[in-house]
Amino acid sequence: MNIADMAMSTSPWLCGEGDYAESVISSRVRLARNLAGFPFAHRAKPEELREALTVSRQALEGANTLKTADFMLMSDLGDLDRQFLVERHLISQEHAEKSAARAVVVGDNEMLSVMINEEDHLRLQSIRSGFQVMEAWRIVNRLDDEIDKQVEYAFSYEWGYLSACPTNTGTGVRASMLVHLPALVHTGQIDKVLHGISQMGLAVRGFYGEGSEVMGNLFQISNRTALGTSEIDIVQSLEKVVKQVLDYEGKAREILLRDARSQIEDKVWRAYGILKYCRKVAHREVMSLTSAVRLGLCLKMVDSISVVGLNSMVFKSQPAHLQKRFGRQMGPSERDVVRADTVRKVLAEEEAKTGTG
Amino acid sequence: MNIADMAMSTSPWLCGEGDYAESVISSRVRLARNLAGFPFAHRAKPEELREALTVSRQALEGANTLKTADFMLMSDLGDLDRQFLVERHLISQEHAEKSAARAVVVGDNEMLSVMINEEDHLRLQSIRSGFQVMEAWRIVNRLDDEIDKQVEYAFSYEWGYLSACPTNTGTGVRASMLVHLPALVHTGQIDKVLHGISQMGLAVRGFYGEGSEVMGNLFQISNRTALGTSEIDIVQSLEKVVKQVLDYEGKAREILLRDARSQIEDKVWRAYGILKYCRKVAHREVMSLTSAVRLGLCLKMVDSISVVGLNSMVFKSQPAHLQKRFGRQMGPSERDVVRADTVRKVLAEEEAKTGTG
Repeated sequence: MNIADMAMSTSPWLCGEGDYAESVISSRVRLARNLAGFPFAHRAKPEELREALTVSRQALEGANTLKTADFMLMSDLGDLDRQFLVERHLISQEHAEKSAARAVVVGDNEMLSVMINEEDHLRLQSIRSGFQVMEAWRIVNRLDDEIDKQVEYAFSYEWGYLSACPTNTGTGVRASMLVHLPALVHTGQIDKVLHGISQMGLAVRGFYGEGSEVMGNLFQISNRTALGTSEIDIVQSLEKVVKQVLDYEGKAREILLRDARSQIEDKVWRAYGILKYCRKVAHREVMSLTSAVRLGLCLKMVDSISVVGLNSMVFKSQPAHLQKRFGRQMGPSERDVVRADTVRKVLAEEEAKTGTG
Repeated sequence: MNIADMAMSTSPWLCGEGDYAESVISSRVRLARNLAGFPFAHRAKPEELREALTVSRQALEGANTLKTADFMLMSDLGDLDRQFLVERHLISQEHAEKSAARAVVVGDNEMLSVMINEEDHLRLQSIRSGFQVMEAWRIVNRLDDEIDKQVEYAFSYEWGYLSACPTNTGTGVRASMLVHLPALVHTGQIDKVLHGISQMGLAVRGFYGEGSEVMGNLFQISNRTALGTSEIDIVQSLEKVVKQVLDYEGKAREILLRDARSQIEDKVWRAYGILKYCRKVAHREVMSLTSAVRLGLCLKMVDSISVVGLNSMVFKSQPAHLQKRFGRQMGPSERDVVRADTVRKVLAEEEAKTGTG
């Protein structure tokens, strides 16, 4: 699927499947792999990078799992397309900013993808809706096995998979879940919970920005190191901690309902009203408004929009998504108008589907 | 009509009739009159006040215009009922706070009313929807003539009608219009315009509070003195100035549409969305939101609510109105919830009437 086609639809992995999908937006597992006999990407000469790209590409083309995947050279893509892929969670910001001998391979449904010559020669990623980190691991592991048959990975029996960054050395696994924690934020308990997560050896960060900059009450929880434990242990440990955090969030929601029901209902429904009627809106505000409505959905206050609808609203609202969708470059002010139109349209479609509105 | 009945409906004079009714909420003429042979109310002894009340009451009962009017002794009314009458524009805050030998007479449709023993023995008021100050004058003048046949007014051939306050001495006329000036406020021109009005010898004040405290961009423009000119001249002079101000407001709206159309549309529709979906809302915020929607109505951006609907929303949202309507005392927090329900209901009815929503 090319970028123009992608731009017309939401990422298929935002389908709302998986456990806890109202609160766990997505699960992701990423593997860092490097080719034996090549310098790491940041130390490689241009011709070595190109050679690593060729070898990687051939290996990926031989992988059954990626049979119908799209190969895109970063140097073939304009700035807007690259930003689109960043918003799509298919490449990193760093990958978008460098282009020579860099590429991305996007598999069916965008659930499986590979960056070539990012920090490591190969960054394999599987992303799924909801609480499905084990399933994501299973899928990316299969691709890893397929590639392993065709290239020699940089591997040490002492250290495991070698990586350009020490934190990835070992299993090369980074497993993460993107979790919506509005009640912990509202009740002021979030810092304590984040601190606890950190104490358990996991990393957590606001999805966009840090600390008070967190948009939409979204937090990404992931393993911090990839060494000295098995892949399955990493994934299971993440699952355990996220379940614990969801439990805290659930208790915080009960407290909100008990102590501040009318304030929460008001916050939820005002957010709904603004999304439904705004004529200009920034992406940051969409994140905040959809967070409130998502909470309302979880608390059974709102039934006229689905999780998928909210996910779609958030994704389609992103700057590059809007510009690709409407097929032209737009400044921030024009984007705010077009974003408001887009948000209203998604909400109207959702209301039509649910027979409300 | 008793207070309980009144509480179930909006003031009939908020019917949206009259010229410029989208921008001129109401026109009012008030006459200050005192009885000859009685001390002014603030200097009268209790028995003199009671006697003045008796004489006034008899005179009013003899007036044909007030044949079916309701007479209410302030001492018979509880605090909530008095506050209701203040919100209804039928008595002043001062009249609500003192009770001995004070009364109000409310004529049909609440368009004609008389306070007895407020600052003056008699305060005759006619209030009308829209730009109808001459009509209001005509009506209150007829009542004045009727009363004049039955009592002797305190009158001096040198000074005219004598009044407890020098600014009312002469004709005793205070003519005013309540005008909505959102564009002059948004474009920052309001201070200049208010200064100009003041220079022309008229008084202007924010409808609730002063300066930056003005709620809902509503301003009351009135004559400042009642002496040395005829009643008709006072009314015509007010008409002229208000037309001028409306002209300035119209020009400011054109500027807004030219320079900031999308911002204004956004402001208007967000306000609409919040009114439609809020679950808690303060009266001050209703004033502000309805001001934005009223502007949208004037600019033909909104057609799903009428001027009458907006007026009704503002009136029903007032604290004593809510409490009378629901038949019980409520604290601010409960009122905010009930107010939100009321506002949503009015909007839903308006949408049903206009076939939108």
